[in-house]
Amino acid sequence: MTDTLRQLAEVLEQRKQADADSSYVASLHAKGLNKILEKVGEECTETLLAAKDCQHSDDKSDLIYETADLWFHSLVMLSHLGLGPEDILQELERRFDLSGLAEKAARQHT
Amino acid sequence: MTDTLRQLAEVLEQRKQADADSSYVASLHAKGLNKILEKVGEECTETLLAAKDCQHSDDKSDLIYETADLWFHSLVMLSHLGLGPEDILQELERRFDLSGLAEKAARQHT
Amino acid sequence: MTDTLRQLAEVLEQRKQADADSSYVASLHAKGLNKILEKVGEECTETLLAAKDCQHSDDKSDLIYETADLWFHSLVMLSHLGLGPEDILQELERRFDLSGLAEKAARQHT
Amino acid sequence: MTDTLRQLAEVLEQRKQADADSSYVASLHAKGLNKILEKVGEECTETLLAAKDCQHSDDKSDLIYETADLWFHSLVMLSHLGLGPEDILQELERRFDLSGLAEKAARQHT
Repeated sequence: MTDTLRQLAEVLEQRKQADADSSYVASLHAKGLNKILEKVGEECTETLLAAKDCQHSDDKSDLIYETADLWFHSLVMLSHLGLGPEDILQELERRFDLSGLAEKAARQHT
Repeated sequence: MTDTLRQLAEVLEQRKQADADSSYVASLHAKGLNKILEKVGEECTETLLAAKDCQHSDDKSDLIYETADLWFHSLVMLSHLGLGPEDILQELERRFDLSGLAEKAARQHT
Repeated sequence: MTDTLRQLAEVLEQRKQADADSSYVASLHAKGLNKILEKVGEECTETLLAAKDCQHSDDKSDLIYETADLWFHSLVMLSHLGLGPEDILQELERRFDLSGLAEKAARQHT
Repeated sequence: MTDTLRQLAEVLEQRKQADADSSYVASLHAKGLNKILEKVGEECTETLLAAKDCQHSDDKSDLIYETADLWFHSLVMLSHLGLGPEDILQELERRFDLSGLAEKAARQHT
Protein backbone atom coordinates (compact mmCIF):
# COMPACT_ATOMS: atom_id res chain seq x y z
CA MET A 1 0.00 0.00 0.00
CA THR A 2 3.02 2.31 0.27
CA ASP A 3 2.79 2.80 -3.49
CA THR A 4 0.12 5.28 -2.51
CA LEU A 5 2.76 7.45 -0.83
CA ARG A 6 5.04 7.22 -3.88
CA GLN A 7 2.19 8.22 -6.21
CA LEU A 8 1.16 11.02 -3.89
CA ALA A 9 4.75 12.27 -3.75
CA GLU A 10 4.79 12.39 -7.57
CA VAL A 11 1.56 14.37 -7.62
CA LEU A 12 3.03 16.76 -5.03
CA GLU A 13 6.20 17.31 -7.10
CA GLN A 14 4.09 18.13 -10.18
CA ARG A 15 1.92 20.59 -8.26
CA LYS A 16 5.02 22.25 -6.73
CA GLN A 17 5.63 23.65 -10.24
CA ALA A 18 1.99 24.63 -10.81
CA ASP A 19 0.41 28.08 -10.70
CA ALA A 20 -0.12 29.21 -7.10
CA ASP A 21 -3.56 30.56 -8.06
CA SER A 22 -4.84 27.20 -9.26
CA SER A 23 -3.11 24.72 -6.91
CA TYR A 24 -3.32 24.59 -3.10
CA VAL A 25 0.06 22.82 -2.97
CA ALA A 26 1.71 25.45 -5.18
CA SER A 27 0.20 28.21 -3.02
CA LEU A 28 1.73 26.64 0.12
CA HIS A 29 5.19 26.52 -1.51
CA ALA A 30 4.79 30.15 -2.63
CA LYS A 31 3.92 31.25 0.92
CA GLY A 32 7.07 29.55 2.20
CA LEU A 33 8.29 27.20 4.91
CA ASN A 34 6.66 28.91 7.90
CA LYS A 35 3.19 28.67 6.31
CA ILE A 36 3.74 24.96 5.55
CA LEU A 37 4.93 24.30 9.13
CA GLU A 38 1.95 26.21 10.54
CA LYS A 39 -0.29 23.81 8.62
CA VAL A 40 1.63 20.75 9.93
CA GLY A 41 1.22 22.03 13.50
CA GLU A 42 -2.45 22.88 12.94
CA GLU A 43 -3.25 19.44 11.55
CA CYS A 44 -1.37 17.79 14.43
CA THR A 45 -3.56 19.66 16.94
CA GLU A 46 -6.72 18.66 15.04
CA THR A 47 -5.51 15.04 14.99
CA LEU A 48 -5.04 15.06 18.79
CA LEU A 49 -8.52 16.55 19.34
CA ALA A 50 -10.12 14.01 16.98
CA ALA A 51 -8.31 11.16 18.78
CA LYS A 52 -9.61 12.40 22.15
CA ASP A 53 -13.16 12.53 20.73
CA CYS A 54 -12.78 8.84 19.73
CA GLN A 55 -12.69 8.02 23.47
CA HIS A 56 -16.38 8.95 23.71
CA SER A 57 -17.65 8.07 20.23
CA ASP A 58 -17.53 5.11 17.83
CA ASP A 59 -17.20 7.40 14.80
CA LYS A 60 -13.54 7.46 13.77
CA SER A 61 -14.00 9.30 10.46
CA ASP A 62 -12.72 12.63 11.86
CA LEU A 63 -9.53 10.98 13.10
CA ILE A 64 -8.92 9.37 9.70
CA TYR A 65 -9.54 12.71 7.98
CA GLU A 66 -7.24 14.71 10.29
CA THR A 67 -4.41 12.14 10.25
CA ALA A 68 -4.57 12.17 6.43
CA ASP A 69 -4.26 15.97 6.61
CA LEU A 70 -1.26 15.63 8.94
CA TRP A 71 0.54 13.12 6.69
CA PHE A 72 -0.32 15.15 3.58
CA HIS A 73 1.10 18.39 4.97
CA SER A 74 4.20 16.59 6.27
CA LEU A 75 4.76 15.35 2.69
CA VAL A 76 4.47 18.94 1.42
CA MET A 77 7.05 19.95 4.08
CA LEU A 78 9.43 17.18 2.92
CA SER A 79 8.95 18.19 -0.73
CA HIS A 80 9.63 21.87 0.12
CA LEU A 81 12.97 20.86 1.67
CA GLY A 82 14.02 18.48 -1.11
CA LEU A 83 13.06 15.25 0.65
CA GLY A 84 10.37 12.62 0.03
CA PRO A 85 8.51 9.80 1.78
CA GLU A 86 11.24 7.30 0.78
CA ASP A 87 13.69 9.09 3.12
CA ILE A 88 11.35 8.61 6.07
CA LEU A 89 10.42 5.03 5.18
CA GLN A 90 14.11 4.05 4.84
CA GLU A 91 14.72 5.44 8.32
CA LEU A 92 11.77 3.40 9.67
CA GLU A 93 13.01 0.26 7.84
CA ARG A 94 16.47 0.74 9.35
CA ARG A 95 15.07 1.13 12.88
CA PHE A 96 12.80 -1.89 12.70
CA ASP A 97 15.05 -4.00 10.49
CA LEU A 98 12.14 -4.27 8.05
CA SER A 99 14.40 -4.93 5.06
CA GLY A 100 15.53 -7.99 7.04
CA LEU A 101 11.87 -8.95 7.52
CA ALA A 102 11.26 -8.54 3.79
CA GLU A 103 14.21 -10.80 2.96
CA LYS A 104 13.04 -13.40 5.45
CA ALA A 105 9.51 -13.33 3.98
CA ALA A 106 10.97 -13.68 0.48
CA ARG A 107 13.07 -16.68 1.54
CA GLN A 108 10.08 -18.36 3.20
CA HIS A 109 8.14 -18.15 -0.06
CA THR A 110 10.77 -20.06 -2.05
CA MET B 1 9.31 1.58 -0.58
CA THR B 2 6.28 -0.63 -1.07
CA ASP B 3 4.90 -2.33 1.98
CA THR B 4 7.13 -0.68 4.58
CA LEU B 5 4.10 0.83 6.30
CA ARG B 6 2.20 -2.49 6.16
CA GLN B 7 5.15 -4.39 7.65
CA LEU B 8 5.61 -1.73 10.31
CA ALA B 9 1.89 -1.90 11.17
CA GLU B 10 2.23 -5.69 11.62
CA VAL B 11 5.21 -5.22 13.92
CA LEU B 12 3.23 -2.64 15.91
CA GLU B 13 0.25 -5.02 16.30
CA GLN B 14 2.55 -7.79 17.59
CA ARG B 15 4.22 -5.47 20.09
CA LYS B 16 0.84 -4.17 21.27
CA GLN B 17 0.43 -7.62 22.88
CA ALA B 18 3.98 -7.72 24.29
CA ASP B 19 5.16 -7.20 27.85
CA ALA B 20 5.19 -3.49 28.75
CA ASP B 21 8.53 -3.97 30.50
CA SER B 22 10.28 -5.26 27.39
CA SER B 23 8.60 -3.30 24.58
CA TYR B 24 8.44 0.49 24.16
CA VAL B 25 5.28 0.15 22.05
CA ALA B 26 3.59 -2.04 24.66
CA SER B 27 4.56 0.45 27.38
CA LEU B 28 2.90 3.28 25.41
CA HIS B 29 -0.34 1.28 25.07
CA ALA B 30 -0.22 0.47 28.80
CA LYS B 31 0.14 4.16 29.70
CA GLY B 32 -2.92 4.97 27.59
CA LEU B 33 -4.14 7.36 24.90
CA ASN B 34 -3.01 10.64 26.54
CA LYS B 35 0.60 9.41 26.78
CA ILE B 36 0.53 8.35 23.11
CA LEU B 37 -0.94 11.71 22.04
CA GLU B 38 1.66 13.59 24.14
CA LYS B 39 4.34 11.75 22.13
CA VAL B 40 2.65 12.63 18.80
CA GLY B 41 2.55 16.32 19.82
CA GLU B 42 6.14 16.22 21.08
CA GLU B 43 7.44 14.68 17.86
CA CYS B 44 5.47 17.21 15.81
CA THR B 45 7.18 20.07 17.68
CA GLU B 46 10.60 18.46 17.17
CA THR B 47 9.82 18.04 13.45
CA LEU B 48 8.96 21.75 13.12
CA LEU B 49 12.17 22.78 14.90
CA ALA B 50 14.28 20.43 12.74
CA ALA B 51 12.62 21.82 9.58
CA LYS B 52 13.43 25.40 10.68
CA ASP B 53 17.06 24.39 11.29
CA CYS B 54 17.20 23.11 7.66
CA GLN B 55 16.83 26.74 6.54
CA HIS B 56 20.35 27.46 7.82
CA SER B 57 22.06 24.08 7.36
CA ASP B 58 22.50 21.49 4.62
CA ASP B 59 22.24 18.59 7.07
CA LYS B 60 18.72 17.17 6.85
CA SER B 61 19.31 14.07 8.99
CA ASP B 62 17.53 15.55 12.05
CA LEU B 63 14.42 16.32 10.00
CA ILE B 64 14.34 12.76 8.60
CA TYR B 65 14.76 11.36 12.12
CA GLU B 66 12.04 13.54 13.69
CA THR B 67 9.54 13.02 10.85
CA ALA B 68 10.08 9.24 11.19
CA ASP B 69 9.33 9.64 14.92
CA LEU B 70 6.16 11.61 14.10
CA TRP B 71 4.89 9.01 11.60
CA PHE B 72 5.84 6.16 13.95
CA HIS B 73 3.92 7.59 16.92
CA SER B 74 0.91 8.44 14.72
CA LEU B 75 0.88 4.73 13.70
CA VAL B 76 0.90 3.74 17.40
CA MET B 77 -2.04 6.16 17.92
CA LEU B 78 -3.98 4.57 15.05
CA SER B 79 -3.23 1.08 16.39
CA HIS B 80 -4.40 2.10 19.88
CA LEU B 81 -7.75 3.21 18.42
CA GLY B 82 -8.25 0.16 16.18
CA LEU B 83 -7.12 1.78 12.94
CA GLY B 84 -4.11 1.27 10.66
CA PRO B 85 -2.15 3.03 7.91
CA GLU B 86 -4.46 1.57 5.23
CA ASP B 87 -7.32 3.74 6.57
CA ILE B 88 -5.25 6.90 6.10
CA LEU B 89 -3.86 5.86 2.70
CA GLN B 90 -7.35 5.04 1.40
CA GLU B 91 -8.46 8.53 2.43
CA LEU B 92 -5.46 10.05 0.61
CA GLU B 93 -6.16 7.88 -2.49
CA ARG B 94 -9.77 9.04 -2.47
CA ARG B 95 -8.80 12.71 -2.25
CA PHE B 96 -6.19 12.57 -4.99
CA ASP B 97 -7.94 9.97 -7.13
CA LEU B 98 -4.79 7.85 -6.87
CA SER B 99 -6.64 4.58 -7.44
CA GLY B 100 -7.58 6.13 -10.79
CA LEU B 101 -3.90 6.89 -11.38
CA ALA B 102 -2.99 3.32 -10.49
CA GLU B 103 -5.58 1.94 -12.94
CA LYS B 104 -4.33 4.25 -15.66
CA ALA B 105 -0.72 3.18 -15.02
CA ALA B 106 -1.79 -0.49 -15.14
CA ARG B 107 -3.59 0.04 -18.46
CA GLN B 108 -0.58 1.80 -19.95
CA HIS B 109 1.61 -1.18 -19.13
CA THR B 110 -0.55 -3.62 -21.13
CA MET C 1 1.45 44.56 35.73
CA THR C 2 -0.71 41.52 36.35
CA ASP C 3 -3.66 43.89 36.70
CA THR C 4 -3.59 43.73 32.93
CA LEU C 5 -4.53 40.04 33.07
CA ARG C 6 -7.35 40.76 35.55
CA GLN C 7 -8.74 43.53 33.34
CA LEU C 8 -8.41 41.36 30.25
CA ALA C 9 -10.22 38.54 32.02
CA GLU C 10 -13.09 40.94 32.82
CA VAL C 11 -13.29 42.01 29.19
CA LEU C 12 -13.31 38.33 28.14
CA GLU C 13 -16.17 37.52 30.55
CA GLN C 14 -18.23 40.42 29.15
CA ARG C 15 -17.63 39.35 25.56
CA LYS C 16 -18.50 35.74 26.41
CA GLN C 17 -22.10 36.99 26.70
CA ALA C 18 -21.94 39.11 23.53
CA ASP C 19 -23.44 38.42 20.11
CA ALA C 20 -21.34 35.87 18.20
CA ASP C 21 -21.74 37.98 15.05
CA SER C 22 -20.16 41.06 16.55
CA SER C 23 -17.52 39.62 18.92
CA TYR C 24 -14.60 37.34 18.01
CA VAL C 25 -14.51 36.01 21.59
CA ALA C 26 -18.25 35.24 21.56
CA SER C 27 -17.86 33.48 18.20
CA LEU C 28 -15.11 31.25 19.65
CA HIS C 29 -17.35 30.26 22.59
CA ALA C 30 -20.22 29.57 20.19
CA LYS C 31 -18.03 27.28 18.07
CA GLY C 32 -17.08 25.33 21.18
CA LEU C 33 -14.08 23.91 23.02
CA ASN C 34 -12.41 22.17 20.05
CA LYS C 35 -12.31 25.41 18.04
CA ILE C 36 -10.79 27.27 21.02
CA LEU C 37 -8.18 24.54 21.53
CA GLU C 38 -7.34 24.54 17.80
CA LYS C 39 -6.57 28.25 18.15
CA VAL C 40 -4.37 27.63 21.25
CA GLY C 41 -2.41 24.97 19.34
CA GLU C 42 -2.16 27.17 16.25
CA GLU C 43 -0.83 30.15 18.21
CA CYS C 44 1.66 27.89 20.01
CA THR C 45 3.06 26.73 16.66
CA GLU C 46 3.29 30.33 15.42
CA THR C 47 5.07 31.30 18.67
CA LEU C 48 7.66 28.54 18.16
CA LEU C 49 8.29 29.59 14.55
CA ALA C 50 8.61 33.28 15.55
CA ALA C 51 11.07 32.31 18.33
CA LYS C 52 13.19 30.35 15.84
CA ASP C 53 13.22 33.36 13.48
CA CYS C 54 14.61 35.47 16.36
CA GLN C 55 17.79 33.38 16.15
CA HIS C 56 18.60 35.02 12.82
CA SER C 57 17.01 38.46 13.21
CA ASP C 58 17.01 41.29 15.73
CA ASP C 59 13.32 42.01 15.18
CA LYS C 60 11.35 40.44 18.03
CA SER C 61 7.98 42.03 17.21
CA ASP C 62 6.57 38.81 15.68
CA LEU C 63 7.44 36.81 18.79
CA ILE C 64 5.74 39.41 21.04
CA TYR C 65 2.67 39.36 18.79
CA GLU C 66 2.40 35.55 18.65
CA THR C 67 3.02 35.05 22.38
CA ALA C 68 0.28 37.62 23.09
CA ASP C 69 -2.01 35.56 20.80
CA LEU C 70 -1.07 32.37 22.70
CA TRP C 71 -1.76 33.90 26.12
CA PHE C 72 -4.98 35.52 24.86
CA HIS C 73 -6.40 32.26 23.49
CA SER C 74 -5.35 30.36 26.63
CA LEU C 75 -7.38 32.93 28.62
CA VAL C 76 -10.39 32.28 26.36
CA MET C 77 -9.91 28.54 27.00
CA LEU C 78 -9.83 29.11 30.78
CA SER C 79 -12.95 31.31 30.56
CA HIS C 80 -14.76 28.66 28.49
CA LEU C 81 -14.11 26.09 31.23
CA GLY C 82 -15.03 28.35 34.16
CA LEU C 83 -11.49 29.27 35.18
CA GLY C 84 -9.48 32.51 35.06
CA PRO C 85 -5.90 33.80 35.17
CA GLU C 86 -6.00 33.96 38.99
CA ASP C 87 -6.18 30.12 39.10
CA ILE C 88 -2.98 29.84 37.06
CA LEU C 89 -1.16 32.63 38.91
CA GLN C 90 -2.01 31.07 42.31
CA GLU C 91 -0.49 27.79 41.07
CA LEU C 92 2.66 29.63 39.96
CA GLU C 93 2.82 31.52 43.32
CA ARG C 94 2.53 28.22 45.17
CA ARG C 95 5.31 26.59 43.15
CA PHE C 96 7.73 29.49 43.48
CA ASP C 97 6.69 30.53 46.97
CA LEU C 98 6.00 34.01 45.56
CA SER C 99 3.51 34.90 48.28
CA GLY C 100 6.42 34.31 50.65
CA LEU C 101 8.57 36.64 48.55
CA ALA C 102 5.85 39.27 48.66
CA GLU C 103 5.63 39.04 52.45
CA LYS C 104 9.40 39.27 52.76
CA ALA C 105 9.47 42.32 50.48
CA ALA C 106 6.69 43.93 52.52
CA ARG C 107 8.60 43.31 55.78
CA GLN C 108 11.78 44.79 54.32
CA HIS C 109 9.96 48.00 53.48
CA THR C 110 8.85 48.60 57.07
CA MET D 1 -2.96 38.56 41.59
CA THR D 2 -0.97 41.75 40.93
CA ASP D 3 2.74 41.41 40.36
CA THR D 4 2.91 37.63 40.35
CA LEU D 5 4.24 37.64 36.79
CA ARG D 6 6.75 40.42 37.58
CA GLN D 7 8.02 38.53 40.64
CA LEU D 8 8.21 35.31 38.67
CA ALA D 9 10.14 37.07 35.89
CA GLU D 10 12.64 38.32 38.51
CA VAL D 11 13.07 34.80 39.88
CA LEU D 12 13.61 33.53 36.32
CA GLU D 13 16.28 36.17 35.61
CA GLN D 14 18.16 35.22 38.81
CA ARG D 15 18.02 31.50 37.97
CA LYS D 16 19.21 32.19 34.40
CA GLN D 17 22.61 32.98 35.99
CA ALA D 18 22.54 29.96 38.33
CA ASP D 19 24.45 26.69 38.07
CA ALA D 20 22.84 24.39 35.50
CA ASP D 21 23.34 21.45 37.85
CA SER D 22 21.28 22.99 40.64
CA SER D 23 18.58 24.93 38.75
CA TYR D 24 16.03 23.56 36.26
CA VAL D 25 15.72 27.02 34.65
CA ALA D 26 19.50 27.34 34.27
CA SER D 27 19.67 23.85 32.76
CA LEU D 28 17.04 24.83 30.15
CA HIS D 29 19.05 27.93 29.16
CA ALA D 30 22.23 25.82 28.96
CA LYS D 31 20.53 23.31 26.63
CA GLY D 32 19.49 26.17 24.34
CA LEU D 33 16.48 27.55 22.49
CA ASN D 34 15.33 24.30 20.82
CA LYS D 35 15.08 22.52 24.19
CA ILE D 36 13.07 25.44 25.64
CA LEU D 37 10.73 25.48 22.63
CA GLU D 38 10.29 21.68 22.84
CA LYS D 39 9.08 22.20 26.41
CA VAL D 40 6.67 24.98 25.33
CA GLY D 41 5.22 22.70 22.65
CA GLU D 42 5.04 19.75 25.05
CA GLU D 43 3.18 21.76 27.70
CA CYS D 44 0.80 23.11 25.07
CA THR D 45 -0.12 19.55 24.04
CA GLU D 46 -0.62 18.56 27.70
CA THR D 47 -2.81 21.64 28.21
CA LEU D 48 -5.02 20.67 25.24
CA LEU D 49 -5.39 17.09 26.52
CA ALA D 50 -6.22 18.30 30.04
CA ALA D 51 -8.82 20.71 28.63
CA LYS D 52 -10.45 17.86 26.66
CA ASP D 53 -10.56 15.74 29.83
CA CYS D 54 -12.47 18.60 31.55
CA GLN D 55 -15.36 17.88 29.17
CA HIS D 56 -15.99 14.59 30.98
CA SER D 57 -14.83 15.42 34.51
CA ASP D 58 -15.41 18.12 37.13
CA ASP D 59 -11.78 18.00 38.27
CA LYS D 60 -9.97 20.94 36.69
CA SER D 61 -6.71 20.61 38.66
CA ASP D 62 -4.82 19.03 35.74
CA LEU D 63 -5.77 21.88 33.43
CA ILE D 64 -4.61 24.47 35.98
CA TYR D 65 -1.34 22.58 36.43
CA GLU D 66 -0.64 22.21 32.70
CA THR D 67 -1.58 25.81 31.83
CA ALA D 68 0.78 27.00 34.60
CA ASP D 69 3.49 24.83 32.99
CA LEU D 70 2.73 26.39 29.58
CA TRP D 71 2.88 29.97 30.89
CA PHE D 72 6.02 29.18 32.92
CA HIS D 73 7.92 27.75 29.95
CA SER D 74 6.78 30.61 27.70
CA LEU D 75 8.29 32.99 30.30
CA VAL D 76 11.57 31.03 30.14
CA MET D 77 11.44 31.37 26.34
CA LEU D 78 10.93 35.14 26.59
CA SER D 79 13.78 35.42 29.10
CA HIS D 80 16.08 33.39 26.83
CA LEU D 81 15.43 35.85 23.99
CA GLY D 82 15.80 39.01 26.09
CA LEU D 83 12.09 39.70 26.57
CA GLY D 84 9.78 39.59 29.57
CA PRO D 85 6.08 39.38 30.48
CA GLU D 86 5.77 43.19 30.34
CA ASP D 87 6.35 43.06 26.55
CA ILE D 88 3.44 40.68 26.10
CA LEU D 89 1.14 42.51 28.53
CA GLN D 90 1.81 45.85 26.80
CA GLU D 91 0.80 44.24 23.51
CA LEU D 92 -2.42 42.91 25.09
CA GLU D 93 -3.13 46.34 26.69
CA ARG D 94 -2.67 47.99 23.31
CA ARG D 95 -5.03 45.56 21.58
CA PHE D 96 -7.77 45.84 24.16
CA ASP D 97 -7.19 49.48 25.05
CA LEU D 98 -6.75 48.36 28.67
CA SER D 99 -4.58 51.35 29.60
CA GLY D 100 -7.63 53.39 28.65
CA LEU D 101 -9.75 51.20 30.94
CA ALA D 102 -7.24 51.68 33.73
CA GLU D 103 -7.32 55.47 33.34
CA LYS D 104 -11.12 55.46 33.31
CA ALA D 105 -11.19 53.31 36.47
CA ALA D 106 -8.69 55.66 38.13
CA ARG D 107 -10.82 58.70 37.24
CA GLN D 108 -13.97 57.04 38.59
CA HIS D 109 -12.29 56.53 41.95
CA THR D 110 -11.48 60.23 42.38
